[in-house]
This record gives sequence, C-alpha cells and structure tokens, in this order.
Amino acid sequence: MVRVGIVGASGYTGSELIRLLLNHAKAELTYVTANRYIGQKVSSLYPNFAGVCDLVYRGFDAAEAKEAAEVLFIALPHGASMDVVSQALEGEHKIIDLSGDFRFADKEVYESWYGMPHKCPTLLGMAVYGLPEVNRKAIKGTNFISNPGCYPTGAILATAPLLTKGLVFEQDIIIDALTGVSGSGRAAKEDTHYCYCDENVSSYKVGGVHQHIPEMEQEMSKIAGEEVRISFTPHLAPFSRGIYTTAYCNLKKNLSTTELIKIFGEFYEGEYFVKVLPEGEYPQVKSVAGSNFCHIGLKVDERTGRVIVISAIDNLVKGASGQAIQNMNIMCGFDETEGLTAVGLMP
Amino acid sequence: MVRVGIVGASGYTGSELIRLLLNHAKAELTYVTANRYIGQKVSSLYPNFAGVCDLVYRGFDAAEAKEAAEVLFIALPHGASMDVVSQALEGEHKIIDLSGDFRFADKEVYESWYGMPHKCPTLLGMAVYGLPEVNRKAIKGTNFISNPGCYPTGAILATAPLLTKGLVFEQDIIIDALTGVSGSGRAAKEDTHYCYCDENVSSYKVGGVHQHIPEMEQEMSKIAGEEVRISFTPHLAPFSRGIYTTAYCNLKKNLSTTELIKIFGEFYEGEYFVKVLPEGEYPQVKSVAGSNFCHIGLKVDERTGRVIVISAIDNLVKGASGQAIQNMNIMCGFDETEGLTAVGLMP
Amino acid sequence: MVRVGIVGASGYTGSELIRLLLNHAKAELTYVTANRYIGQKVSSLYPNFAGVCDLVYRGFDAAEAKEAAEVLFIALPHGASMDVVSQALEGEHKIIDLSGDFRFADKEVYESWYGMPHKCPTLLGMAVYGLPEVNRKAIKGTNFISNPGCYPTGAILATAPLLTKGLVFEQDIIIDALTGVSGSGRAAKEDTHYCYCDENVSSYKVGGVHQHIPEMEQEMSKIAGEEVRISFTPHLAPFSRGIYTTAYCNLKKNLSTTELIKIFGEFYEGEYFVKVLPEGEYPQVKSVAGSNFCHIGLKVDERTGRVIVISAIDNLVKGASGQAIQNMNIMCGFDETEGLTAVGLMP
Amino acid sequence: MVRVGIVGASGYTGSELIRLLLNHAKAELTYVTANRYIGQKVSSLYPNFAGVCDLVYRGFDAAEAKEAAEVLFIALPHGASMDVVSQALEGEHKIIDLSGDFRFADKEVYESWYGMPHKCPTLLGMAVYGLPEVNRKAIKGTNFISNPGCYPTGAILATAPLLTKGLVFEQDIIIDALTGVSGSGRAAKEDTHYCYCDENVSSYKVGGVHQHIPEMEQEMSKIAGEEVRISFTPHLAPFSRGIYTTAYCNLKKNLSTTELIKIFGEFYEGEYFVKVLPEGEYPQVKSVAGSNFCHIGLKVDERTGRVIVISAIDNLVKGASGQAIQNMNIMCGFDETEGLTAVGLMP
Repeated sequence: MVRVGIVGASGYTGSELIRLLLNHAKAELTYVTANRYIGQKVSSLYPNFAGVCDLVYRGFDAAEAKEAAEVLFIALPHGASMDVVSQALEGEHKIIDLSGDFRFADKEVYESWYGMPHKCPTLLGMAVYGLPEVNRKAIKGTNFISNPGCYPTGAILATAPLLTKGLVFEQDIIIDALTGVSGSGRAAKEDTHYCYCDENVSSYKVGGVHQHIPEMEQEMSKIAGEEVRISFTPHLAPFSRGIYTTAYCNLKKNLSTTELIKIFGEFYEGEYFVKVLPEGEYPQVKSVAGSNFCHIGLKVDERTGRVIVISAIDNLVKGASGQAIQNMNIMCGFDETEGLTAVGLMP
Repeated sequence: MVRVGIVGASGYTGSELIRLLLNHAKAELTYVTANRYIGQKVSSLYPNFAGVCDLVYRGFDAAEAKEAAEVLFIALPHGASMDVVSQALEGEHKIIDLSGDFRFADKEVYESWYGMPHKCPTLLGMAVYGLPEVNRKAIKGTNFISNPGCYPTGAILATAPLLTKGLVFEQDIIIDALTGVSGSGRAAKEDTHYCYCDENVSSYKVGGVHQHIPEMEQEMSKIAGEEVRISFTPHLAPFSRGIYTTAYCNLKKNLSTTELIKIFGEFYEGEYFVKVLPEGEYPQVKSVAGSNFCHIGLKVDERTGRVIVISAIDNLVKGASGQAIQNMNIMCGFDETEGLTAVGLMP
Repeated sequence: MVRVGIVGASGYTGSELIRLLLNHAKAELTYVTANRYIGQKVSSLYPNFAGVCDLVYRGFDAAEAKEAAEVLFIALPHGASMDVVSQALEGEHKIIDLSGDFRFADKEVYESWYGMPHKCPTLLGMAVYGLPEVNRKAIKGTNFISNPGCYPTGAILATAPLLTKGLVFEQDIIIDALTGVSGSGRAAKEDTHYCYCDENVSSYKVGGVHQHIPEMEQEMSKIAGEEVRISFTPHLAPFSRGIYTTAYCNLKKNLSTTELIKIFGEFYEGEYFVKVLPEGEYPQVKSVAGSNFCHIGLKVDERTGRVIVISAIDNLVKGASGQAIQNMNIMCGFDETEGLTAVGLMP
Repeated sequence: MVRVGIVGASGYTGSELIRLLLNHAKAELTYVTANRYIGQKVSSLYPNFAGVCDLVYRGFDAAEAKEAAEVLFIALPHGASMDVVSQALEGEHKIIDLSGDFRFADKEVYESWYGMPHKCPTLLGMAVYGLPEVNRKAIKGTNFISNPGCYPTGAILATAPLLTKGLVFEQDIIIDALTGVSGSGRAAKEDTHYCYCDENVSSYKVGGVHQHIPEMEQEMSKIAGEEVRISFTPHLAPFSRGIYTTAYCNLKKNLSTTELIKIFGEFYEGEYFVKVLPEGEYPQVKSVAGSNFCHIGLKVDERTGRVIVISAIDNLVKGASGQAIQNMNIMCGFDETEGLTAVGLMP
C-alpha cells in the first residue's frame, strides 16, 4: 500500500485522479491540495464523490506533502507546476507531473512554445516521458515522470508503429484532432460555455502553433530515429471527454491495410491498453470514455498512397490521469493495470 | 466464485451487466445469449469490449444455461422474459429477472397495464421485488428476484422515508420524471434517432397510462401501509443515461427542510448506494452516471406545504443492471458493494 | 419603417433581437449598446452575423438613443434596466423592457423576490404586461411594455384557458419546468460550463423561491379572477434553447381530454403563435426552437382527476425577444407576425 | 409567383425545402409527395409545421406534378431519383435534383462509386452542377440542375480560390470533414441512434472510398484546369446539422495568411452566402446552423508550407435545400437571396 497525494486536485485531471484512485487496491489517497478551495470537501466541487470521499482540500506545503505521501501527482497548469516539482523533488517522493513543464530537454523549445520563462532549467531533461507503451523500461527506473499531453498520447500511439519501422515519410505527416471540452479545463470561459460548444465545432491554434507540436515532434523523432515534421490542427467538439485523432501519412512503399494492421498488432502485442481494431472497424470516442484504453483503426487509401490512422482515447484518462496511474503502477512495481481495468462507458 | 449467465445480452441492460461483471471479483461471466446475434462477439456490438471480452452470443438453451451458470440474469423485454424464467426456475439457478413480467402479484394488473396475457400466472407473486434498501431481508432468502423498473427505483427511493413515517398524503403524490434515451433500448426507432432527441425534450404516456405506475403504487403502498395513488409523467430528455425524478408530496404537518433531511438521513443510514445531500444541494444526473448510486435532495415549499424531493440514478445501473448485481451480491452472500464501487463519471 | 434600438445588445436576448430584426420588413435597427464592448462589432461576439450586420456596440446615452430610434428594447439584467427605462421614458420612445424590473405593481413584491431595492417605484404598475394572447388590447394602447419572463410565458399560456373558465382549483397548481442553458445568460459560470450541463440535469431555486413565482401568480390571478397559488420547480437541462413546462392542475369537475382540447382550441382560436396539438400529441422543445411559437398538449389523468398540460417555447424567442417584437408589432400597428413567421428548426 | 413541388418530401432535405419555401415571397408550395406517407399531413412527421402547413403527402405522379408546379425539387435518395427525373424532364418543369444521380458526366464513374447501374445514361452530362458561386451563368440558362452534395459544397468552396489561381499542388490535397447526424437521413439506423452518436465521434468510408470523392475531384479539376487528387475522410459528429471541413493544401510558393485571405476575399467578393473570416478567426458549425451561409477561415502553417482552410456550412441548407432554392432563384430570375436571408441560429 502506497500513500498518494495530489497537488492541484480541484481541476479535472485532479478530480479524475481521485476517481480512479478510490478504486485502486494498492494506493491510499491521503493528501489533496487546491489553494483556492482550502477547507472545502472534494465532494463540494465534484458531487459524484458525495458520501464516498471525505477528503478536504489543503494548501500545498512541501513538508506536509512529504509526510503525507510517497507518490505525488502534480496536476497543476503549466507554469505553476515547475515550482512545486522542484520543491517536491527534494524529498524522496516519486513525482508524476501532468503539466507540460518538464516534457522538453531544451529550455528554448519550452520558452518559445509556452511563451514563458522556465524557472527550473536544471531539471529539464531529467524526467522520463511517461508513455509506457514506448518508454516502459525507463519509467520503471525513475522517480520523476513527465506525463504526456493528451494530443501527443493520441498522435504518438497512432503513428509509433509506422515510425519505428520507417514506413512513412517522416516530414509529411498531418495530425487532425478533436478534443472534448474537458480538455479546456474546469474554468468557466467563453469557449467552454454550453451554448458555445453545444451543436458546434470550432478550431483554435490553427497553422502549426499549438504547444503540443514540439512534444509530438520530439517524441516521434526519437521513435523514428529521424526528424519528424507534422502539421497539427486541433478542433473543439461537442463531447465532454475524448481525443479523436486522424493521422495522414504517406507510405514509402506499397503496403496493404491488412499488412499494416498486422504490423500494428505486433507492435502493440501484450499492451493491455492499446487495442488495434480489425479491418473495417474504426475507433469511437465513446468506446473509450472513462477508460484507460486507446483504440486504433487504419486504412490505406490506395488512390493516393496514404495510410489514414485513427485513434481514440479519453483525454482525462489515457490522455492524463489514467496514464499517470499507469506510470505509478510501473514505478511502484504494481500490476500495470491495477485500478485501470474499467472499460468505456457505452452507451 | 460464482458462474454467471445473461439471457438477452445484446440489449443495453445486458451490455451493462457484462461491463459491470468484468470487474466483479466473485463472479465469472460464462454464458451470454442473444438469439439475433448467435456466433457474433459481444465486442462486435459493443466496441468498448474490444480486446477485453471475447464472449460470443449463443442462442438460449435451458439445459446449456443450467450447465454454464449458477446465477442467471434475464435481460429480455417483458413478454419475452416469462418463458425463459419459467424454464430457468426448473433448474437450481438463482434467477434475477430484469423485465416487468414478475413484478406484480395480480395477473389482472399485469395484463391490463402491459396489454398482453401472462403465460405463467402461477409464478406471479413468487419473486421478491429486488429493491435492497427496502427488501434486503427477503432478497437474502430467495432464489428468484424481480428487479425493479428504472422509474420505480427513482420514485420509491425518493418517497420511501416519507411514506414509511406517514408524513405525506398518500393519495396526492405527483412524480415527474426524465429518462435518458438508453431507457428506450437499443433498437433504432423514430424516437431514438439522434436528430429527434438532441436539443429536445418530449413526453409520452402522459396522463396516468405508463406501465410503471401500478408497480410504483404497489410497492409504495406496501411501504406506507396505506393505498398510495400517484400521477406520473415521463419525459424523454437529451442524455444517454439517467432517471431524474421530481416528487411533489403534500405534508400532513409542518416539517422543515432540515427536519426532513434528518429523517431521510436516518432512513438511509448505512445504505452505501443512497446518498442524501446536504440542505441546498440537489442531485445531478451526471453525478451518478455509470454508478450504482442514488442521490437525493429535498426542499420544503413553505408557501404551499409541499415537500419537493428530487432523486437521480443511472437508469442502466441502479435502475437496472447494477441493482441486479447488488441483488446477486446479497443472494450469494458477497459484499453488497462488490463490483459496484465506481463513482459517477464527472465531468 | 420604424427605427429601433437595443440597449444591452451583447447578451443572448439582445443578440436574438438583432437576429430577428435583420429580417423584419418594417424595422430598421440603428442603435445597439453594450457598455463592455464599446467599439466592437456585433459580429465579433456573434459570428453568425459575419458579413451581414456591421453594427458596432456603443455606450448607452439617453439623448443619443432618442435621436437614433423610435422604439427601444431594453435587454439588460434586472436591476440594471430600471435606470435606463426611467431615462428612456422621458423621451417619446416606445419602450419594451425585457427585464423583471417593471413586471410588478407592488414594490414590496419586487424587493422581496428580487432581493434589491427598486429605484423607480413611481413607475411600477405603469407598464403593460406584454403577453399578447392575454393583453393584446392594452398592449396596443401603451408606449411602455414589460415583457414577460420566459417561465411565466410557458406557464401562463399552458393554464390560461383553465383559469379563465374556472375549471381547476386555483390554489393547487404545480408547474415543473425545464430550461435550456441559454436561459442562464451569456456569462461564463460554473453552471453554464459545457462539462457541467452536458448529459446532465440539475435543479435550482427549489421549494418556492424562484423570482418568477410572484409574476406567474400575479398574472394567473388576474386571468382567473381568483388568487392563484403555485408550486414551481425549475430544472436546467442539456439543450441551448427552450422552456418545457408541465403543469399539474386538479379539475373541479370531470372533463375529458377531448373536451379540454376543444376549450383550449377555442381560447387560442386566431392566435397565430399558439398551437394546440391534437389529442395524443405533446409538444417538443425542438419543434419551436428558433421560432415564436408556443405548442400546447394536454391529457386528463382519469385515475386522479388531474389534467396535465405541457407547453414548449423557445426561451429566447416567445420567451423573450420574439415576444418583444410581437409587442412592438402590435404597438406600431404592424402585422403582428411580421418578422416572426419562421417555424422551428427541425431536425 | 412560381408554383413549386417537392418529390420525396418526407426526408430531411424535403422537410427543409418546405421550411424554407414557407417564407419565400415568390414561390408557392403546391405539391409534396412521399410514397410511404400518402394522405398524412406534413406536420404529422414534422411537428414544427403544426398549424402552419396543412399540406398532405401524395404519391408521385408525373402528370399531376406537371399540373401542380413549374419547379420541381427531387429530394429522393440516389437510385430512386433517376426515374423521376427522366419522367419530369419530359414536362416543361424546371428540375432541381438533390441526389447524386446526375452529378457525373461519365456513366462508369457513377456506377463504380455508387455501386449500381445508371438507368438513364443518356441524361448524364445534361444537368448543370448547381454551385452558384462557381457556375452561376450556366445555372441561369438551364432547366435542369444537379444540386451538389454536402461534402463537396464544403470542400469546393474551401479550395476554389486556391485551385483557380493554381496556388497549391493539385495532387496532394487532404479533406478531413465532420458531418452532423442529419446527413445520415431520417431513417432510424444503428448509427443514427442517439446513444450511438451522443458524446461520440466515429468514422466511415475511410481510405478513399466515399462516393463524394469523384464529385469533388471532377469539379475541383474543372476549377483548377488540372487533374485534382484528394484524400477524403468523413467523420460522424454529435450535432444535428453541419459540415465542418478542414482542407490541407501544399502551397507552390510562399504566401502569407494575409495574402491568402485577400485572395479569398476577392474571389468571393459580392457573394452573399460565402463569408471569408478575418485573420485569426475560424468558422463554427453553429454560426451557420439553419442558414445558407458558408464561412471560411484559413491559416498558413509556415513550418510546413501548408495552408489549412476551414469551412462550415449547414448540410441541410447550403449543403442541400438552401442551395437548391438559391439555384431556383437564379433559374427563375428572382433575387438570389430570396427566402434565404436568415442567419445562423446562435446561441
């Protein structure tokens, strides 16, 4: 039994960590912080916890955190996370940071894409990128995980088998992705208003400017062993949870849909959370809602020599909190699926 | 470990039983039937099970069912259920019937409200009405459960504390309820079309004609020890899961909101799945989505002497399959919450 | 051709007035104000106007308004409206106030239900309550309209034929109503967040405390010639537009559904915007979305002696801006349906 | 005043024609057919017409149609349309066919993509492709229009300015598009069930197999004067109305976003229904819902040399029935915007 704390537990990824940890057999949630809600019960913000979770938000205090927990999830926005991580690392905690603050080796990349100075540059490059299907071994050996972004999780899992084997042109990849509204966070804003999102689709950060682009390119390039270059367009769609990714890649040589599905199946063999669908079936957002699964389907467009790969994840689970717990399970030597076996909520 | 079968596993309640049983530590799902989909994998209808559940639909056969399972859930439509139940009862199975076929003691009540003859009248009155918060003791001692309807579950839990204590006029109760679209079942019909339900609310069986009325009145009358008479109006609302019930009751004497919340809290003390909310808070459909919880909130309207009680459940879980598993847990001597501890999926 | 201005044109009712006035043959929209958006184009807030409406928000100035327009719609929140109305009334404008500020004759009723002092008590009782189907004659003769609230419009139209004829017990009426999220206004708040509203229903101001109650009781009492007393419960439902009202009334004597539909049909004969549905049909929110229509359906519950009347309107049209234009049409001697003939947007 | 008939008026495009024609000053709707609903009122299928449209569905009869109307809209599914068109063309009608049956010059293209024989091959190539922004002159001079598909309308309008000027590589274009559920038609099917579509996105006809591909390539090639080759992926998204198209094109030479917006603005100058949005703004589905407008926004991705162009239309209006009426207006010499000036329904 490991004691676990969450710093920044009032947002959606924090709440989702609580939801998942309540049914985790090896973890005890002992410590949750939210500086804006000190003294309030978690269930006053998230009534699904009514009568089930009596935890009360506290203000973050590094010493207190050290006392209370061996594993610390940092679920703060980027920019706010770096301070806490640097304090927490001085303890003996296992740290899993869900923000973008420690995903880059290169300070300048961070600063130019996130538009703010990095306050702890000496820690850059020290965290392991927590995508278990690609980095499991390194995850097992570290105390410091940088948990992947939601879009990168969907895009990397959709393309990793192609990139590993060098099957597609690395400089000519298009990633078109839809996010559910929970990806915008819990704050009430003009573009999270029900009347804005409902019956609507809108686009933002069009034209190669989203901060997840360098993360995708960095990790895809590692996988490919070649520099990868992508065009990425994010759209906001009318559902609460999910990332739905369509990747367009140009094949270097003729390969059939059947052959590629076989290659994907082999690549993800033994991976509990990644399911490659049979030919003719494509992922659905709802199939994975509330679950840590990633579904992948693909088809070759023979007229144009492209392969279209589609993946679906729940942005709050495999795209954030579920993957964070998967990383904790690996770091702590638990069964990797512990607490994460729920399937998607259909219908 | 008990072996479990589901007869009629292609519909939504069947699929929900599968979803919940996959994470049940004491039950092994061995047998699923669906006469229309014989030979097809469950995951071909419900892709959330892709790579997780390899079960294949079979045709129902009483002997085979007897071999395969000790507990049998019957998730067939009313009218179709009675045949199977009568065959299954000849075995040693524990039977939990989710249809309306065995909820009445009185054949004529069934036939006049369901509009069809009852083929097994000798079995009427033999099943225990499976609402654990009211009938736990009888459930423990039976092999044959008639699982409550979704609307009755929401309405009875909202009013039982008032009726038990005789606090409201039994003949003057109004139940206004909203159902999610999954309540209409998996069949594609005009009124389950997305473009019909989306951004819409519609009403049906208005004016005291819904077949759940005699079920509510029968069970509420037992609880009250007086004849209960209700007006009930069901509405179809644009969400997939949930029953949202507003009950209007006239108080026999002055009682404050605070006093009534205390009475409800005492009535449901120790009940894991029923949560009485603090004064000023009211249930939300989303708080209980995907969970077996029932949330209840109430307020006295002092101007009119009425108490308004609101309850929320997931129609497929506490309103059907979750409650069925709760009943199985009680019948089999398992922890009543086994497999049912997941909280609602927010956001 | 009449020149028209809108004070407070950045909110949803303001935007809806613009939308409707753009297709009005007798009105020219010349003046729109929004103190928070001075200098911005209307289409920067509402992109449906892109390239169609080049109006720019101005700050409100009484003299300027007087110059610019003969008819002034005041689409400000209650509390903010009274100041503007009192200034505007000094001009020769026709004033249509969409707030609750001038709906009551009695200062104390306003102050106790709206929780704020009324700054222009001498104007109370001077406005005509702008529900044309009930007050057409008075509307024709006034320059000052107080436009009804959205809930009262739905509830009064559903019950007026019963109350006029004294067919139901006036002190025992229940109004259960659902509102779309646009009823909460354009401001981003916790309970207008997509992830809060989506797949959800919640309740607020339960137990006889909503500020529309005295408005309903005041107007229903006038119609009945008796004091009317209601229980009213509002719920927030997952659609953008609509008020869906279910009224429960106890009949003083036996009347069949057929007889009551005939009575309703006669009451609303010649009313273009109120449609009484045939027996067995009930209103749908979507049938009236975007339109100025009110649909009404009803059924007698013979078991309990109640009649259930259901009405549906678009809260922003018949429940606010459409009705305001209907009032303008009457005041100005235009065809009452001018600019308002669009039917609901189905599917 | 022209008399108008609709053949196949029970589907969504038929219903939408009725909705729009009811507010058309120059057209009188005299004749609607639906073989499955003969004798039923239009409002029994579409209650938004209750009390407003008393038309009754008839069975199609060519002679009767000839008597009843000068303009005939054919809103039948492909395959069913060709018979009716060939009969109707023998009269003096103006014909606007909304199906895919007459969009191709080449019989083999039709047969291989639509998977059925063409029964009237001699009529192929005789209809004018009814996209007014590209083909206005030819539309004015014909009696026979083949109305464009919904996806092609969105995709062609998004790319026509680039193709006309030869600014992008014609063989390397990706069209990723989302459709609302009404695009699947009124028939209740597994994939139009609310519980399937709600909170979901799914994909179909992935990999270059959708029957709109040859239509897009044929028309784009005409515009470009070069052979155009596209990859097209359609997705089903959770809204009732809309086509949301993202086009990825590789620029032949460096052009800035500003320069391209200027080029688009010039191309669509004077076009009432196509609005090119300012830099930094992108289309929204909801901005055009219920309207005949097409909104277009674009951005150059300088890192990759691509331009991303996004367009939004209402699939039932500009993508079908509204465009059909726009074509009628041109053919009949009416103001092109007659009956089509409503803006999108926001919020």
